[in-house]
Amino acid sequence: MDWLDSVLWNDAGLVPAIAQDRVSGEVLTLAWMNRDALARTAQTRLAHYWSRSRGRLWQKGEQSGHVQRVQEIRLDCDSDAVLLVVEQEGGIACHTGRRRCFFQRLDGDAWRAVEPVLKDPKAIYGK
Amino acid sequence: MDWLDSVLWNDAGLVPAIAQDRVSGEVLTLAWMNRDALARTAQTRLAHYWSRSRGRLWQKGEQSGHVQRVQEIRLDCDSDAVLLVVEQEGGIACHTGRRRCFFQRLDGDAWRAVEPVLKDPKAIYGK
Repeated sequence: MDWLDSVLWNDAGLVPAIAQDRVSGEVLTLAWMNRDALARTAQTRLAHYWSRSRGRLWQKGEQSGHVQRVQEIRLDCDSDAVLLVVEQEGGIACHTGRRRCFFQRLDGDAWRAVEPVLKDPKAIYGK
Repeated sequence: MDWLDSVLWNDAGLVPAIAQDRVSGEVLTLAWMNRDALARTAQTRLAHYWSRSRGRLWQKGEQSGHVQRVQEIRLDCDSDAVLLVVEQEGGIACHTGRRRCFFQRLDGDAWRAVEPVLKDPKAIYGK
């Protein structure tokens, strides 16, 4: 059986995929993969995801250059979640220019942005 | 505005929630939360999730005793994914008796279980 058949894709044909920094251990991103995205990720060792908003496959960093080089691909006990251990090119995983997407922390009853913007998104995306 | 209103719940009223071990940095689990689960998690500092298979709220460890004590709650840039930094009671997060749920690693074209069972699930759940 194809290893891709072991994954329990949801009704939309997707599975959530966590990317974790190999060096710092930080959880960088949670994105979504379809079968093609996971296949390409395994083949190229560069993280590929399915954009639900844009309705298309994308390679992480295709515009920004902030690619994720994949060291390890894991699947959970229920086979419905993927974990990538990655080397994050440029040290910036988030489209806001921060190290990682999980930069809002709950303090009391409010979310606070607790990580700095390292690079202006306009400079990253050339907009 | 209520901090819970900032979360972008999906069509089923859920958001994926990653639990990461505070000490080892390991990604332990990916589960789902509804609004009530996140509220209770923040209030009690014990991880609560929504079980999609059982259709009910549950406290992680309610049966096994393997509770997750929550040190930090984070939200990502799109406000549609949660990260919990936790202390994992008993050092076992997975219902299979392993440290964590992400124990299947892709080796070539096959998933291999690469983490040992620390405790027989029958002993954990008393079945």
